[in-house]
Amino acid sequence: MSAASRAKRNLPDLEVTVLEQTEDVSYSACGMPYNIADPDREMDDLVVRHAHVFREKQGIDLRTGHRVEGIDRSAKTVTGKNLDGEEFEIRYDNLLIATGASPIIPDLPGFDLPGVMGLKSLEDGKKIKDFIRSQDVKKLVIIGMGYIALEMCEALRERDIEVHMVKPRPIFLPWMNPQLASVVKEEVEGQGVFIHMGHKIERIEKSGDSLNVMCPDLTLEGQAVLVAIGVRPSSEMAAGAGLELGPSGSIAVDRTLKTNDENIYSAGDCADAYHVVTGQKTWVPLALRANRAGWAVADNVTGRRTELEGIAGSAVFKVFDLEVARTGLSTNEAEKAGFDPMEAVVKTRSRAHAHPGSTTMHVQIVGDKKSGRLLGMQIVGREGAVHRIKAPSVALHCKMTVEAFSQCDLAYAPPFSPTWDPMLTAANQLVKRM
Amino acid sequence: MSAASRAKRNLPDLEVTVLEQTEDVSYSACGMPYNIADPDREMDDLVVRHAHVFREKQGIDLRTGHRVEGIDRSAKTVTGKNLDGEEFEIRYDNLLIATGASPIIPDLPGFDLPGVMGLKSLEDGKKIKDFIRSQDVKKLVIIGMGYIALEMCEALRERDIEVHMVKPRPIFLPWMNPQLASVVKEEVEGQGVFIHMGHKIERIEKSGDSLNVMCPDLTLEGQAVLVAIGVRPSSEMAAGAGLELGPSGSIAVDRTLKTNDENIYSAGDCADAYHVVTGQKTWVPLALRANRAGWAVADNVTGRRTELEGIAGSAVFKVFDLEVARTGLSTNEAEKAGFDPMEAVVKTRSRAHAHPGSTTMHVQIVGDKKSGRLLGMQIVGREGAVHRIKAPSVALHCKMTVEAFSQCDLAYAPPFSPTWDPMLTAANQLVKRM
Repeated sequence: MSAASRAKRNLPDLEVTVLEQTEDVSYSACGMPYNIADPDREMDDLVVRHAHVFREKQGIDLRTGHRVEGIDRSAKTVTGKNLDGEEFEIRYDNLLIATGASPIIPDLPGFDLPGVMGLKSLEDGKKIKDFIRSQDVKKLVIIGMGYIALEMCEALRERDIEVHMVKPRPIFLPWMNPQLASVVKEEVEGQGVFIHMGHKIERIEKSGDSLNVMCPDLTLEGQAVLVAIGVRPSSEMAAGAGLELGPSGSIAVDRTLKTNDENIYSAGDCADAYHVVTGQKTWVPLALRANRAGWAVADNVTGRRTELEGIAGSAVFKVFDLEVARTGLSTNEAEKAGFDPMEAVVKTRSRAHAHPGSTTMHVQIVGDKKSGRLLGMQIVGREGAVHRIKAPSVALHCKMTVEAFSQCDLAYAPPFSPTWDPMLTAANQLVKRM
Repeated sequence: MSAASRAKRNLPDLEVTVLEQTEDVSYSACGMPYNIADPDREMDDLVVRHAHVFREKQGIDLRTGHRVEGIDRSAKTVTGKNLDGEEFEIRYDNLLIATGASPIIPDLPGFDLPGVMGLKSLEDGKKIKDFIRSQDVKKLVIIGMGYIALEMCEALRERDIEVHMVKPRPIFLPWMNPQLASVVKEEVEGQGVFIHMGHKIERIEKSGDSLNVMCPDLTLEGQAVLVAIGVRPSSEMAAGAGLELGPSGSIAVDRTLKTNDENIYSAGDCADAYHVVTGQKTWVPLALRANRAGWAVADNVTGRRTELEGIAGSAVFKVFDLEVARTGLSTNEAEKAGFDPMEAVVKTRSRAHAHPGSTTMHVQIVGDKKSGRLLGMQIVGREGAVHRIKAPSVALHCKMTVEAFSQCDLAYAPPFSPTWDPMLTAANQLVKRM
């Protein structure tokens, strides 16, 4: 919808048709956990712009309930069925594939039982919220421990639901520095969440009113199961049409968001991107990139050539009273990308000496020993972690060295940081070590 | 003390002598308003490291109560008097002048009356706090409306003191975009502070237990008067010794912090710096630069050659419930520096669509029409303004264009910002305009 809106703004005479299989467009998907946390709010509060606004005010031919099933690249048509089962065929000059991503649901027994749910679309969100209400859920099992799983465990605890989290891998937040990850784990456990790591999930069984998540050495019981082990790009149709795929099966696009077909673009959680640190393709399905890519497609099809440099791997989330932030590469990722990484981890205060309300802040910084380049940063703290991470993100876009970053004039006032911002303290440490 | 400590760490055998005219070293000067706000805290809480630690643990020959009165550059000696009136003469190989800055007290009648006070040293802070307590101050006049004046007005309101602020110039925060400045002014007035602008101060008169600040058209009465119209570099001794001065009479230093004398360095609020945006000399007396410069002097005199790139003009403060942040140049400063500035000002929300607790955030961004370069940013808001400004600060160090900044992967999660961070929204607007 970002692309459609901007294309019409750029070129009001352009004929823009949007085909959407559900009834929902333009909603804040990332806001769903926070909405689910509050029984008094309607899920539809998350709708940013209603379908009729796109149709009537913006002149977009928006067709909801239209499921696209195939792309004919030589005929330049898309075909599919609407909710009434009627077939349609639409011709395009330029096509944007913005099919997003969908939650991974393992092909194991019992994952199709009622009460076993994933969270991606607004429909999913409504289903979870309705289920909690109608079944008066008091106990729930989350399979997975990523961003969404953690945001959801906070939301469910807010509704006083007992939450058990389970996953096969024995490492909490595996992309994170272990010292920082343990701070997050302690926070989650401190809020009464039960974390079970290193348990392979074999199946889900119904038992009376409950669902049992069965592991070889553990059975977790809940009235509902949230499957949050990640998402995968919805790229089957693109692959079926012979379009090239990138990392994790995402749709491969160049810096103008064009696929290997001159007339087909892709943007959003289904498409890949360049990583500004590695220069390589990556797949990071996050909202800012999705929006930005949508705009860039609109600009490119309306004659304003735009190239996107790429993403820096920035990601942030809140979990209970903690802010968790990362940008760039972890040490492992840096090694895999061919760098010679070195890290420093510091534990400092969030505010100046003797300033009331100070809390602990953990910063990990990664640099490349050979070139001196800053490669990444991770921050965990009770205040200021998320907004701070934007500074090293900019530094990564500029390919700054750790030493140059350590010289930056980051502002200081006692309510906000020590004289040396924790990020600078980390950078100073790493410079010394390098 | 930063320089002395680091020099001893770098080179334990180095003989380091520190001459300080007061009894206080190593305290958080910026923390004084917050300490004054709390009657239950001692001013000495702000001492970061006590004199005996420097002497006994670090082996620094720290002589408090020693007032330096002259520098003989050919003999390489400093001379002065201690508290007992005894004269001293000390020879140096390398000399660091770190005399700081002192509050400007106008040469007008009555500014020497008891109860008329400035705030710079810990002694000043103690004097103000004692005066408020002993005189049971209920009403106070602040002359000036800069950072310190505003931080102090918050501190005094917290102690339920009626505060009147007065200054000759009719513009509130003249370096700030007027739209943003008016947000700050409204906040201050909303907290019950009386702001009187455009009133020339002629004298202060004693009247019973009160002091009257006299303007041609206005008399403001208070039990105490805080003079906070700014500071000036304490560079008289350096000037007397024939050292070159820079902007505002600060001591001119190169990137290694060396003055025009091969053996004399200067660091802290008395010394100048390069501005990374203009490339020109500037004088911005702030704590981070002071510390960093102290370290660099220590490194340079102990054989680790270090050059400081300079400052980006970052400055932040809190005033009541508002965070105020700036980096780089204002539109006026950009014009004066020979740029062709263009600005955009946006008013956005601090959090995602439909996320609870969202507040208003104001961002001004300045770019150079000719080169496309980002020149500065100002942010005012109730959350996240201060930590956000670190991102454009880094961008200024990298001489990034507004367009490149607008492409940065600044992280997003609903509790922290809209999908497009307010800084990106501002950058997008300015790109369009440019």
